[in-house]
Parts: sequence; C-alpha cells; structure tokens
Amino acid sequence: MQAARLHEYTEEMENALQIDEIDRPEATRSDHIVVEVEGAGWCQTDNHIIEGMWTDYVDQDLPMTLGHENAGKVVEVGPEVRTVEEGDKVICHPVMTCGVCRQCRLGNDMYCVDLEFPGLTTDGGFAEYLLTNERAVIPLPDEVDTTDIAPHADAGITAYHAVKKAANELNAGDHAVVIGIGGLGHIGLQCLEAMTAAEITALDIKAEARELAADLGAHHTLDPTGQNVEEEILAITDGRGAEQIIDFVGADETTALGPKIAGSGGDHHVVGYGGHVHEPSQTLVDGEFSYVGTLVGEYTELQELVRLVERGDVELRTSQYDLGDINTVAERLEHNEIEGRAVITP
Amino acid sequence: MQAARLHEYTEEMENALQIDEIDRPEATRSDHIVVEVEGAGWCQTDNHIIEGMWTDYVDQDLPMTLGHENAGKVVEVGPEVRTVEEGDKVICHPVMTCGVCRQCRLGNDMYCVDLEFPGLTTDGGFAEYLLTNERAVIPLPDEVDTTDIAPHADAGITAYHAVKKAANELNAGDHAVVIGIGGLGHIGLQCLEAMTAAEITALDIKAEARELAADLGAHHTLDPTGQNVEEEILAITDGRGAEQIIDFVGADETTALGPKIAGSGGDHHVVGYGGHVHEPSQTLVDGEFSYVGTLVGEYTELQELVRLVERGDVELRTSQYDLGDINTVAERLEHNEIEGRAVITP
Amino acid sequence: MQAARLHEYTEEMENALQIDEIDRPEATRSDHIVVEVEGAGWCQTDNHIIEGMWTDYVDQDLPMTLGHENAGKVVEVGPEVRTVEEGDKVICHPVMTCGVCRQCRLGNDMYCVDLEFPGLTTDGGFAEYLLTNERAVIPLPDEVDTTDIAPHADAGITAYHAVKKAANELNAGDHAVVIGIGGLGHIGLQCLEAMTAAEITALDIKAEARELAADLGAHHTLDPTGQNVEEEILAITDGRGAEQIIDFVGADETTALGPKIAGSGGDHHVVGYGGHVHEPSQTLVDGEFSYVGTLVGEYTELQELVRLVERGDVELRTSQYDLGDINTVAERLEHNEIEGRAVITP
Amino acid sequence: MQAARLHEYTEEMENALQIDEIDRPEATRSDHIVVEVEGAGWCQTDNHIIEGMWTDYVDQDLPMTLGHENAGKVVEVGPEVRTVEEGDKVICHPVMTCGVCRQCRLGNDMYCVDLEFPGLTTDGGFAEYLLTNERAVIPLPDEVDTTDIAPHADAGITAYHAVKKAANELNAGDHAVVIGIGGLGHIGLQCLEAMTAAEITALDIKAEARELAADLGAHHTLDPTGQNVEEEILAITDGRGAEQIIDFVGADETTALGPKIAGSGGDHHVVGYGGHVHEPSQTLVDGEFSYVGTLVGEYTELQELVRLVERGDVELRTSQYDLGDINTVAERLEHNEIEGRAVITP
Ligand SMILES: [Zn+2]
Ligand SMILES: [Zn+2]
Ligand SMILES: [Zn+2]
Ligand SMILES: [Zn+2]
Ligand SMILES: [Zn+2]
Ligand SMILES: [Zn+2]
Ligand SMILES: [Zn+2]
Ligand SMILES: [Zn+2]
Ligand SMILES: [Zn+2]
Ligand SMILES: [Zn+2]
Repeated sequence: MQAARLHEYTEEMENALQIDEIDRPEATRSDHIVVEVEGAGWCQTDNHIIEGMWTDYVDQDLPMTLGHENAGKVVEVGPEVRTVEEGDKVICHPVMTCGVCRQCRLGNDMYCVDLEFPGLTTDGGFAEYLLTNERAVIPLPDEVDTTDIAPHADAGITAYHAVKKAANELNAGDHAVVIGIGGLGHIGLQCLEAMTAAEITALDIKAEARELAADLGAHHTLDPTGQNVEEEILAITDGRGAEQIIDFVGADETTALGPKIAGSGGDHHVVGYGGHVHEPSQTLVDGEFSYVGTLVGEYTELQELVRLVERGDVELRTSQYDLGDINTVAERLEHNEIEGRAVITP
Repeated sequence: MQAARLHEYTEEMENALQIDEIDRPEATRSDHIVVEVEGAGWCQTDNHIIEGMWTDYVDQDLPMTLGHENAGKVVEVGPEVRTVEEGDKVICHPVMTCGVCRQCRLGNDMYCVDLEFPGLTTDGGFAEYLLTNERAVIPLPDEVDTTDIAPHADAGITAYHAVKKAANELNAGDHAVVIGIGGLGHIGLQCLEAMTAAEITALDIKAEARELAADLGAHHTLDPTGQNVEEEILAITDGRGAEQIIDFVGADETTALGPKIAGSGGDHHVVGYGGHVHEPSQTLVDGEFSYVGTLVGEYTELQELVRLVERGDVELRTSQYDLGDINTVAERLEHNEIEGRAVITP
Repeated sequence: MQAARLHEYTEEMENALQIDEIDRPEATRSDHIVVEVEGAGWCQTDNHIIEGMWTDYVDQDLPMTLGHENAGKVVEVGPEVRTVEEGDKVICHPVMTCGVCRQCRLGNDMYCVDLEFPGLTTDGGFAEYLLTNERAVIPLPDEVDTTDIAPHADAGITAYHAVKKAANELNAGDHAVVIGIGGLGHIGLQCLEAMTAAEITALDIKAEARELAADLGAHHTLDPTGQNVEEEILAITDGRGAEQIIDFVGADETTALGPKIAGSGGDHHVVGYGGHVHEPSQTLVDGEFSYVGTLVGEYTELQELVRLVERGDVELRTSQYDLGDINTVAERLEHNEIEGRAVITP
Repeated sequence: MQAARLHEYTEEMENALQIDEIDRPEATRSDHIVVEVEGAGWCQTDNHIIEGMWTDYVDQDLPMTLGHENAGKVVEVGPEVRTVEEGDKVICHPVMTCGVCRQCRLGNDMYCVDLEFPGLTTDGGFAEYLLTNERAVIPLPDEVDTTDIAPHADAGITAYHAVKKAANELNAGDHAVVIGIGGLGHIGLQCLEAMTAAEITALDIKAEARELAADLGAHHTLDPTGQNVEEEILAITDGRGAEQIIDFVGADETTALGPKIAGSGGDHHVVGYGGHVHEPSQTLVDGEFSYVGTLVGEYTELQELVRLVERGDVELRTSQYDLGDINTVAERLEHNEIEGRAVITP
C-alpha cells in the first residue's frame, strides 16, 4: 500500500514526506483492528513532528508514516473484538491504549503507561490502511461521511477537551475568551456555544477568522493587532475580566494576555504550544490565576463530540487533498494558508 | 495607642517601621468591630510591603500600620453586630469584605470588589487596637491562646487554602510534594496529613526544616541542594511522578521543578511568590501540567482550620516579640533566621 | 397600604386571603430596603401555605401577607445600603439572609441560620410594599419589565437551581428527563437547553404542556397516561436509561418512575413535593440511584438566571391579575387551570 | 476441584450450599486469569443470594458457586495478559469488565454493559480455583497475606466507595455519622478517619460494635435502642445536624433517621439494603436532603484501599473457616453472630 512517510527531520515542508510502497498492516493481537483510511486530517502537530520538535518528548523511529486524525472503514478485526466488525465505519481516537493500567481505568486515555500513538510513535493514517485497536475506534452511523469527520479525531477532541474543562467553571453569563479561530478554535467555539450559556469573545489576527467566529456564535470578536484587548475585555465584562480563557495558539503574546484579561480566579487553558508561559509568581498569586495545560482528549470525549456533530451543533470547515499532494498541505499550513482543516484522502 | 507604621518604602529592614502614637480606631459603621490585639504574626509579605513590592497591585497610603495576622479580644461592636460581643476572643480573617458583591456571595472573600485589607491597604494589627468588621471575625473558645493562634489568620489559611485545593485531587496513596517547610509550609504539611491519605515528600534546603517535616508527618524529605529531586521523586513514585505539588517558595528554581517531578495531569500550586514561572507551552501541553496560583483563603476555611487546631491536628511553632522589637523581626526574617512564626504582642 | 393576608389555614381557596389595609413597612435596619411591588408571582407553595402544609417546617404568625416572588422599585433604603438606591428596579431573592453565618458565607442562602422568608415566615409581596434587605435584591436594567420577571424570583431560581445541579452531571449527548412542564418545568427546560448539550425528554399529562415543551426545545415528549414511559425512555436512550431526571411534580407516581427510567448512577431530582418517595433500599443500591432533594436557589443563581433572561434564552409565560382577584388565582391553580405563571400586580 | 455451590434458593442457611467436585476452570480468552483461591470472604449478600433476593436484578443459573470476595495466587494467564504472571499474589475486584464499553472507559466498572460477576452471575471463589480476567486483578506485594486481605475485594471497596463519595463533601470539622459497625462499617469508619478531618459518630445497637468503633477512631458512639439519636446528634453538632450519613444497614429504621439527623443539604448514603426508603417529597425539598444509593466500588478504588491497608490505615477483623464449614458461616451471619468478617480458605 502507499504511505506518506517521514525519513528525516527537516524545516523544508515542500519535501517533508515521501510516498512509499509498504506492506499493509495486519491484526496480530486479539484486539487489533485494521482500518481502510478514508480521511486523515493534517494537523499543526504534523509540522512540529517534521521539524523534530517532539523528539524530546517521545521516541520516534524513522521512517514513520504520519497522520493521527483518522477515520474510515474496518477491514479486519482481531479474534476477540466484540464491538465492531468488518465493514463498519469508524473514527479513530488517536491513541491505542492498554485498558489495564490505572490511568486507562480512570478514563485518562492520554496518560496510558503502555500507549501507542499512530502517526507520532508508530505508523499513522497518511496511508491506505491503518493498524489500531478496539479501544481506539468509535462506530459511526452509516450516514456519516468519514472523510468529513476525520479531523475530529484529534483537532476536534483536543478542542472539546479544553472547552469541557473550561465549561465546568462557567456559570450562565460568565465570560469566556477563545484565542485563535483556526482548525481547533473554530470547533472549540462551537462546543462552548453548545455546552454553556457563557458570553464568548473570539480573538484572531485574521479578519476572515473573526468573521467565521461571529458566524459560529461568538458574541464579540477582537483583533489583537488593531485593538487594545485588555481594555476591550474589561469593558465587555464590566471591569471584572474573563472567567476562562482558551488559548489555541500558545504563543508568547497570547499566554501573556492571560493575567491581563482574566478576572479573579481565572484560568488560561494552554492548548496550542508555539511559545512559552512567563510571568512573575506574584501575578499568579495576586489574581489566583492559573495556566492550565491541556492535552488531546479522551475516547469518551470523542464519543460526546460525535454526538454534538450528529445533533448539528458542530460543523467542520474542511478541504480535501490526495495523498500525493501532502507536502503542499504541509507547506500551506506552515504559511497559514489553509482555511479550516485539510483532510488527506489516501 | 502605639502602632508600628511604615512611612516610606525601603530595603533597610532594621529601620523599616516606626512606633507612632496614634488615635484608637472606633466603630463607625453598624458592622464595625474594634479588637484589642493580643497577637499579630509577622509575615514574609510584610517584608515585601516594606520593599514596595505591592504598589503595582494595590493602593497604599503611607504612613500605614502593617500587620494582617491578628487575634485578640473584642472591645467595641457596631450597633447591628449579632454574632460577637465585647469581651469575646476572636481571630481575624485578614480582609474586611462587603458581603453583598457576587464574589462575597460565592464565598470568594479575597475577590470581594469592595475589600479593605488591614495591614495592606488600611491600618493593620501591629498596634494596640485594630478596626475590622463582623464578616472578618471568628469567635474562639475561651481556652484558646489568641497570641499563639494569630498566625493562622493569614499564614495558616493561605497554607490551608492551597492544601485544600490539592487535597480535592489527591486519592489515597497519591503523592504530594511540599516545597518549603517554613512558616506556611509546616502548617500546610500538617493540613495535608490530616485531610488526605496521600504520601508526602517535603523539600527544604535547611536540615532543621526537613527534620521538622519528618516530625510533622512527611513520609520522605529531600534536600534540593544535595539530592537529585527529579530522580528521587520518580523513584519514590515508581516512575509516575507526583500528583500534586504545593510550592510555598515560588522561586525560579522551585517552579522549574514542577514539570520534572509531576506525573501526567499534575498541578503545581504557586503559593510563595519570590520568582517567576517560565516554561515552554509544549511542556504544559505534553504533561497536561498546570501552574495554579493560590491566594489567601476564605473565612470559612479559617473556620475549618480553627477546628483542625482545636482537634490537635495542627500545631504552630511560634516565638513572641514586643512591639518595640518589630524591626528586629523584620531583619531576622529577611535573613531567614526566624524559626516557625514570629508573633508581635502589642 | 393594601395587602392580601392569610388569617387562618383553610382548604377553601375561594376565600383564602383577605385584602386588609395595613401600615407600609419601613427600613429600620442599616441594610433594609422597601420595595414598591410591581409584580408578585403566585406559587403552588402559596396554596400549600394556605392549607397549613408548612406549619411542621417553619414558624408562621397569622395574619400574614403571602407572596414570595417579587419584583418592583426601590422606594427606601437603610443608611448603609451601597449597591442600590431609590428608584432602582429590582427583583427580590425570596429570603433575607444574615450574611454572617457559615452557610451564607458558603453561598448557601437557603440554609442561613438567621433567615427571614417574606411570604412564608414574615409579610410578603401580595401588597403594595415589601420589606426586604440589601442581600436580597438584584438590580435590573431599566428596560426590564418587573411584572414580567417577578416569577423568576422563586419559580425561576428553583427550576434553575435544580437544572444546574443536573447539568453538572450531564455530558454532551446524555439524556435528561423533565417531569412536569408547568410554571417551574417550562423554565427548567429552557435552562437545560441553554446550559447543556443534553438530549431532553419532557413528560406531562396535558397535551398543551407537551406542545409547549416541544416549542421550547424538548427533543421528545411523552404522555405518562397514554404511553409506557419506561419502554419509551429505554428506546430513546438505546437501552441505557436517562442520566438525570428533574421532577417538578414530586407525586408518588413521578418519584416511582425514577428507578425505572434512570441509567446506572442516575439521579432523580425532587423539586415538586406533592407526594412521597418510596423504594426498597436495594433498588437504590443496585442502580446506584439517588433521590436528590432540591430547594429554591441561591442569590447568585438568580443573578445567572437574570442573565439568561437578558440573553433571550429563557422566556416566561405569564398572565396578570389585580390584587383583588387573588383568591380566583388561588382557586384556578388548585384546579390546574392556570397557563404559565400568574402574577399579581398590587 | 471442590466448590461450594447453590443448587436451589432457600431460607435454610444450615443446608444452603453443597460441596461439589467440579472441573477446574481454564483460561480460554486472551485476558483470562485462573487464581488459586487462598481467601474468600463471606458476605451478607451471599445470604441474600441464597434467599433468592437477587433474582429480580440479575440472571443466575443454578447450580452456581458463590463467593465474590477473593484473593489468592495466579496459576494460569491468557496469552495476552501483560500485568501479572503465574505465581503473583492478587486480590480480585468482584467483576470481570469488558474494558471497551463507555462505562468501563469512564471508570465505572460496576456499570459495565458486558459484565460477569463471579459469585453472583457466574461461578465464584468458594472453590479451589476461580476464573477471572486481567481487568479484575490487582497484584499484591509478597508480604501481604491473601487470606487476610480477601474481604477488601468487596466489603472493603464497597465501604471505601461510599466513604469516598461522602469524603468529597466533608470539610475539616464537618460531622459524619456511620450507621452499623459490622463487616463493612468498621472498614468505612477507618477510611473516613484516614481520608478526612471530619468528626465522626458511630451508631450500632451492639455494645461490642460501639467499642470497636471507639477503638478505630470514632469520636462519639450512640446506641439507637437506648438513646435519642436525633437529640444527641443535634447536641454534638451545635444544632446544625450531620453533613454526611453513611448507612451500612439500610433498614427502614436507619433510613428514617436520615432526615432527622442531617443538616441542610445533607446526604444519606444507602449502602446496606435490608429495608426501604420512605419519606414525603417535602422532607427532601425542605432540607435539600438526598438519599444516595451506593454500589460496590471501582477497580481503582480497590487499588487505593490496598494502599491504605499497606500504610496501616485500615485493619480488618477476620476469622477463618474451612470450605466444609461454609454453611455454619452462613447460619452464624444470619443470626448476627460473626465478629468482623468470616473468610473461607478453600
Ligand atoms: Zn493533532
Ligand atoms: Zn493503559
Ligand atoms: Zn522567560
Ligand atoms: Zn501574610
Ligand atoms: Zn464583597
Ligand atoms: Zn414558590
Ligand atoms: Zn446567614
Ligand atoms: Zn411507603
Ligand atoms: Zn459482598
Ligand atoms: Zn464494560
């Protein structure tokens, strides 16, 4: 089968991945599942992997097939799989968890101590077939388009996970700020709208992104390059500041906004990870302010997100590309030229 | 009456405060209370106020009497006070709250929008008498020694508040790290021991502090200058890291420890505020790690702490000083020469 | 002034209350507020009070003016009131709380140990003027119609409070059942819709009530007299049962539904209180099922509800009556002949 | 192998079970585990099963080996088991869960939709060998005595689970009432003591049970037959009532105590299930009082409890019996003549 693989770390996106002919994976454990990939979303993290930015955090053996936002059709199941069968449409949670460690049992899939992460630590979904396991797949109704829904497998649940943590702290009428209305942010905004009665301000430097935000339900939009965000948020909130901030960018400039626009006890959820956080301890203490890291989401959260999609509460802006065009996608995202989410159709 | 007052910001602790003769405060509102101060704890924050470190965060009119950890006897009550009367022993929550703003109603005393903070924004307790209000005082049983209990008014509840937030996340057998076993830390450690079944490691660079920690129930103690804290914590926790870290120091070195010793989803509570936090956003994301700012505690938390003291679960190491010796106390704390907590007896 | 007062307990609604001429109340404490009543909702509880059903639970001195859902205009304030002034429009939380007991400080207004409850334990709002206090009033924008909003003061926050407890347990796509789409239920349904992404089934024996439910966003409606509710709910939820049940009726028949339609770990919130709960302990154990009592709501919840109203998320069906027609209202509600909420305009 | 089996439901405990010679179970799935049983606790539920009290709630095929509180040594593992191996000491969570349903993933083991419950729905541990699976076993250190620890597998975690729910609501100094200091209650009491700083009152009609409670840390003990429990609890709590009640009996008399001794917003956790709950809805509403059903605990809670046992925080009172004496145990428990917990050693 064909697979788009990373052979060495590089800053050159136009030659990042190489289309190789490799063997189709097979189910060798009782819970294994092989999926014919019908959609595989391209993620900012793919660019970061190509640049070698994850080598300090995980083990990677090159060459490796990238692609961690996958959906498609089940073509083979291990002998003890009980919840799906050949022919079923599925969306794949990004990680293959063990199901027996304490973290798996607590529902913290991403903390599994015996985790495989296709597209990050093993071969992923920019290929005709993907090897995953029963604990990773969520069956989909026949009427769902697997290509369209694929990006929810990672972009979607990462946004959902962050929003769910924030939503738990948001009373009716509280104020939430969403920073960055891109691939993740435009999903997060819709989740926030569906799950809370909070008032929402969206921040983005691109006018089209702010328009999209307004279309999707943001009550206010701000342009950080042209407006004084601190003054505006204080005005909107009658001087009290925002209760929750969800930062899909994670750059130095956006994390620095947090303490200025948060009200007492406010949280700044760090989802994007371009830059760093840097503040005096006293600033955290004085406002009882927190920087809250947030990582992908759980399998059960992907179930919940799928329900939101089925209800029509969350729509995804996608554009489709052939496997052969994959480096074009890499390059365009690097230059911030992708609208919505790019999906590879291998 | 006599009062120890700050006339100008200075780095010179030996002349920091001046003993002035000023008028005794009087109850001019229906809920006012005048307390004869029998104990007023000296806090690291008093040194910070003297150095001018709070001028960016609050308004201060000099000269001002410092002292925000107060206990004593009620000598005058406003006409509508119903819960205490003249002669009652009380400990004073550090702030005078309005009781009618949304934050007061939510129990968030420290976020009150109409707050007075004796010793930080108005005259405090390093004086014979203190003006406060009904919402700030907690009646004490006759057998309690007001001088001994005074530091709980701020050091105590600050430690308690941080520990209570951490305790909510600690299951039996989880691991908690307490950084800094000084005035706050030695209280926090005991609260943690009383309120959870967590395993506790205490960190301090001073050998006596580590001994105190072991006496007070720490299961492990570590010396950050002589030991590799990261390796030790991973060994103690079978490689999973600590679930909760409570940092009573807040220096660059201690906040940098957090991501190294925290397990997945771990929190680093920032209570002390000497330095700053500084990490790549990716570090927060990868470990779903958070820096959680934490401010003084609520009135109801001081009630709870008083109950812990009455049960014998928390003991306080104090030493007493006359009002005239107050600058000596300031200087000694600056040089880290105070054991336990210094209490002024005006 | 004129006031509708209860002189003795009775089952005869047509003569329940008597219009008396009594003195206008005055502000005698520093925090007192006198409100000119512009709307006072009639509540099922008023019928229960008239029948003597509250004498086992609270102290009542007859004659007493009823009416605990009040809104209007401030006409007098005590000397230390700081958050409202004469002429302000306000809605009144039903109870006058002390602000200094532990429960008040924890935000549990209804548990205040020094509580006055106008219309239940002291004179209420079926009168030209009402005595309340600063901790009870929420200022309203000028454009709000105080007559229309009055029922939110009790019916509204009671529904909101129950829904908020349920909402905390409801993930996206979970199932909630609302029993009784009357005065409280039709508000609760809208709150649920605004604050969660749950799927909602509404139960009512009246066809108009079910139609109203569908209009207000219920995804399914059921008629308990004509349909097998247990089978229907199991069908709707793919056999798993409902996660949360909010019972605005509280009759024997409705509380008995709970264990049959709840999924594992489900909660049955008891808001209405006509009948009783009666189940084997084993039923609660086997399904880890709970009966959760729920009482009015907090001041801060009334603030949140007012924000929902301002956002247009919650609309109220009301009809207005003169003070002189008050016994007609009592009788009609007894016969279940009031659509939406009746509001008295004294 | 020998196994104590139920052939027909009966009220006659002296002939309840029959010792049969049956085949040793074998690992036929990749995750199966066969345990040589070294300890199997006898539970009140075993008496209830014998009486046929569970036939309305689960499917049972007789004859069936009882015994759901098991510990012992691994003697066979399925081919994909990764966390234990032959020879390991283990304690067995009572249920074999699927690991792939939503409830398993949320950590709610007892709600698994594809659950096997040895001793309740399939053959249990009153036999030389037990078939279970990898998701059910917790490895134990070599120094742990498997016979002694066995009752924690069900009695222990049921008590722990109830206490953990209550503990989440208990602030320092709050009041908890434990009803019934028998097999579960004496464990629950110790967990409460280890995990909270609550003040505890223990209720039991037997003097020895009350003495045991006092030994294990109860601050007060009461005899419901000789004392007015309502008056005593109100006196102990300064009139406010208990915040949490944990009822290990669940009889009509004990559930009726709840509303009388609970403070506002209090919870009555129903763990035992002899009788029924029966109260007017108004009682639940007026005190915002809840009856909270509570079922066995999760696998992760058993891990936590094992840590408490290893720390020495929880000790178990057990007595040991041969498999041949099993009906004697059944009869003695029926007559309330077992001290602590009886453990069968097959
Ligand atoms: Zn991604
Ligand atoms: Zn795992
Ligand atoms: Zn820096
Ligand atoms: Zn201080
Ligand atoms: Zn306030
Ligand atoms: Zn009412
Ligand atoms: Zn109160
Ligand atoms: Zn009954
Ligand atoms: Zn049992
Ligand atoms: Zn399952």
